[in-house]
Amino acid sequence: MPDKITVLLLGDVFGQPGCRALFVGLKSLAKEYRADLVVVNGENAADGFGITPEIADRLFASGADVLTSGNHIWQKREILPFLDSQERMLRPGNYPPGVPGHGSCIVEVKGVKVGVLNLQGRLRMGDLDCPFRIGADMVRKLREKTKVILVDFHAEAPEEKEALACYLDGQVSSVTGTHTHVQTADERIYPKGTAYISDIGMTGPVDSVIGCDMEISLRRSATQMPLRMEVSDTPAAIQGVKIEIDAASGKALSIERVVKHSLV
Amino acid sequence: MPDKITVLLLGDVFGQPGCRALFVGLKSLAKEYRADLVVVNGENAADGFGITPEIADRLFASGADVLTSGNHIWQKREILPFLDSQERMLRPGNYPPGVPGHGSCIVEVKGVKVGVLNLQGRLRMGDLDCPFRIGADMVRKLREKTKVILVDFHAEAPEEKEALACYLDGQVSSVTGTHTHVQTADERIYPKGTAYISDIGMTGPVDSVIGCDMEISLRRSATQMPLRMEVSDTPAAIQGVKIEIDAASGKALSIERVVKHSLV
Amino acid sequence: MPDKITVLLLGDVFGQPGCRALFVGLKSLAKEYRADLVVVNGENAADGFGITPEIADRLFASGADVLTSGNHIWQKREILPFLDSQERMLRPGNYPPGVPGHGSCIVEVKGVKVGVLNLQGRLRMGDLDCPFRIGADMVRKLREKTKVILVDFHAEAPEEKEALACYLDGQVSSVTGTHTHVQTADERIYPKGTAYISDIGMTGPVDSVIGCDMEISLRRSATQMPLRMEVSDTPAAIQGVKIEIDAASGKALSIERVVKHSLV
Amino acid sequence: MPDKITVLLLGDVFGQPGCRALFVGLKSLAKEYRADLVVVNGENAADGFGITPEIADRLFASGADVLTSGNHIWQKREILPFLDSQERMLRPGNYPPGVPGHGSCIVEVKGVKVGVLNLQGRLRMGDLDCPFRIGADMVRKLREKTKVILVDFHAEAPEEKEALACYLDGQVSSVTGTHTHVQTADERIYPKGTAYISDIGMTGPVDSVIGCDMEISLRRSATQMPLRMEVSDTPAAIQGVKIEIDAASGKALSIERVVKHSLV
Ligand SMILES: [Fe+2]
Ligand SMILES: [Fe+2]
Ligand SMILES: [Fe+2]
Ligand SMILES: [Fe+2]
Ligand SMILES: [Fe+2]
Ligand SMILES: [Fe+2]
Ligand SMILES: [Fe+2]
Ligand SMILES: [Fe+2]
Repeated sequence: MPDKITVLLLGDVFGQPGCRALFVGLKSLAKEYRADLVVVNGENAADGFGITPEIADRLFASGADVLTSGNHIWQKREILPFLDSQERMLRPGNYPPGVPGHGSCIVEVKGVKVGVLNLQGRLRMGDLDCPFRIGADMVRKLREKTKVILVDFHAEAPEEKEALACYLDGQVSSVTGTHTHVQTADERIYPKGTAYISDIGMTGPVDSVIGCDMEISLRRSATQMPLRMEVSDTPAAIQGVKIEIDAASGKALSIERVVKHSLV
Repeated sequence: MPDKITVLLLGDVFGQPGCRALFVGLKSLAKEYRADLVVVNGENAADGFGITPEIADRLFASGADVLTSGNHIWQKREILPFLDSQERMLRPGNYPPGVPGHGSCIVEVKGVKVGVLNLQGRLRMGDLDCPFRIGADMVRKLREKTKVILVDFHAEAPEEKEALACYLDGQVSSVTGTHTHVQTADERIYPKGTAYISDIGMTGPVDSVIGCDMEISLRRSATQMPLRMEVSDTPAAIQGVKIEIDAASGKALSIERVVKHSLV
Repeated sequence: MPDKITVLLLGDVFGQPGCRALFVGLKSLAKEYRADLVVVNGENAADGFGITPEIADRLFASGADVLTSGNHIWQKREILPFLDSQERMLRPGNYPPGVPGHGSCIVEVKGVKVGVLNLQGRLRMGDLDCPFRIGADMVRKLREKTKVILVDFHAEAPEEKEALACYLDGQVSSVTGTHTHVQTADERIYPKGTAYISDIGMTGPVDSVIGCDMEISLRRSATQMPLRMEVSDTPAAIQGVKIEIDAASGKALSIERVVKHSLV
Repeated sequence: MPDKITVLLLGDVFGQPGCRALFVGLKSLAKEYRADLVVVNGENAADGFGITPEIADRLFASGADVLTSGNHIWQKREILPFLDSQERMLRPGNYPPGVPGHGSCIVEVKGVKVGVLNLQGRLRMGDLDCPFRIGADMVRKLREKTKVILVDFHAEAPEEKEALACYLDGQVSSVTGTHTHVQTADERIYPKGTAYISDIGMTGPVDSVIGCDMEISLRRSATQMPLRMEVSDTPAAIQGVKIEIDAASGKALSIERVVKHSLV
């Protein structure tokens, strides 16, 4: 068993530009960062809206060990059975009972069990079960098996994200935000050992409005008509964080932002 | 007239910890960054809710050249006449006609006129006039006097912030976001010369939930009762950006994030 | 010129059940109420989402004199040119400049000019131009031609609806709400002569959740998944109000709720 | 034991005008409607924001048997211990565990047990526990003691209100909405015997914007400044519904809207 585990968490994969960047570049990126485990949020991989089983499988084949998601996960219906059958494909765990899929999994890396937990925020987002209470319950169950636990908190409001990190500090290795598609500069380690960042950013087209075509976004703002968003067809950047974790205690040792511009 | 102008823009001053940090440290910070102009968003300076004339005057005396604000500006009533009388105290310019105060001013720095414009977003925020159209109008008027124009866009949604920057690219020197209290890591210069960052962060207590007491925030999340927020009484960090601008063309030459931990 | 004008205003036509009810029953209903003018909100006529030119034409042929709409008007793209070409098809007038269509028209009834104005609320709805200021401007222009003016205010929040009625009292003959799909019991005439009701209701399937299939609605509530709504395929009720207006002064004489259960 | 129970449910009491109307007129109103039980929503009784123990006691003394509430219940802190000690004072039952107070009670009327249950909506309101699941649980417990159950669903969105009524149809005697302060005209009995109305209205000042001073409301709309609302100091109307319930089966026999203009 190693002393520490190095994890790479990558932000929302946005459409073909985001997929291409990972299909081509994820393996070498993981090598560069000596990542033992790669977690990718795939909620926007299929044209910006949801993900398909084919894309998910190709992301796994390209080096993703676990796929997380968020509010957009429901938009391609063909993913529903996959959510039930594929252990390592997560949707936020605080959807109500009876919803397809599951919110956590445990994977083994170099003999170390790592729990991955996906939660979704409510503030300015949607009417889910409480991510604090559900989150604490799920963490408790995961901790029966391991202290190394990564939480992808898919949420809008910084106040909700920071509050969850305070709440889970010392119980999990990291709370990392996704959903806004903008990487924040507030990475830190909380007093009891939980690494935190409000948002790890997006793996998607740089010349865009949060991944979308700029012209359409501007017309949408100017007209307030519900124009359908399209993925900006421009080169992507891969964004996320690298976290080092003490394998025995589960405490975070470091958190570092990752940005890698793709050539494809 | 100098070749370039160096500007320091600082994020929402939050309560006494934020004020103290600037009262004590702003002058030396401005010197350290060789700033020709200092713009400070003061909407949360008075206990987290609004600002008073006394605090505003003390921020001016401590080195702020212009104060901007946002949705919280209305919370101390005594500020209303000050908004009308103090040229360099701004509120978002896209409030409806007839509202106290004004949204822009022009200051002179080393013989260079600099326009400062404050706007507020609408998405998930409030029902103001269109920041795109009002913003473009106000920029047009400012450009009759100068090409060096700084926009503080006080907004929640990254998509609205990025869209405004696309929209104004080439017309203003910078569009810098405030309001979320979390500094983002996406600083860049758009193709036509406008510097951009989604949020410059907060000048306020570090051990907090976006400035507020952590215990109260957690209880608020846990109970959903509308508990009154209190300022976290812990040391502050000063956050913002430094931007260098070509004095003749008004184009941004560089943008750099600033974080300074305060000892008081 | 007659002493008074009798107007029938009917609420959001919802899908085929709503259309069928009007195709078959509108002419006899108009006769029963001795309506001189029939205004129908058609924003949900096409499967619950928007309206097509074909449906609009058929509603005109069935006895509608003017069609109003609301936030859903943009959902069938084929309506866009129709919004420009068909004088009597309205979309809310406080969309930004440059958007297809128009928000008001004037029709002549028994020698009396009647202005019809469509506005949309912002509170908990969307980021449009101020319905108060735009509304007052449009009313001013209409009043250059006639004092008989009907306002369809498509809005969610009762406080915004009541406020607009207070604001326009005496300037228009009526402010009648649409959008919630639930008829309210607060019909009244304001002191200066403007008839008001918060919502005139829906012309659509009774056994439904605001027009939608009950099973799907319940599953949506239970799962919080964004399941696509479908129109409830059950018999409709026609809902709206009858308003009598003094032709010379434009003041409302009476307002009465209308509910007619359809057999088709 | 009587064959049927007659219940009077009255909408949100708004400030002094609403209180005065009930202090003076509730007993005679109850007599007029031969009500066996009077349930009053008191969330806005104290100046429009919350309720105090004194006002609650006076409402009980004036003839209210049970007081329900909603999102505004937390605004006077002195009510918190009262929520725990007074069996017949309810707050919505789907607040998280650990919050002061309780969401249901059972009262006995002419030898018949009647359950009263208070729930709050989430759509466009706040992040509570699911009113469907919590509601069904609480109904199950109440039904161990009685089939006569009244649900006050304090919610904004008609779709959520109608969905809850569909969901609980046959399990409770009535689902009646509060919170919008506007009485709706959609009272009905669902197929399995549950009486329903989207909103029973407000017991408060008629010349107002949902209870508030009209001038302030208009200025608030016009300026978008967060002006403090004040209660409109004008005569009130008492609004609500009368429901007759079969005592043995708990099924609703009739539902009728009530509006009574007060002279005080
Ligand atoms: Fe996303
Ligand atoms: Fe998302
Ligand atoms: Fe702020
Ligand atoms: Fe703000
Ligand atoms: Fe509608
Ligand atoms: Fe609508
Ligand atoms: Fe209320
Ligand atoms: Fe309420």
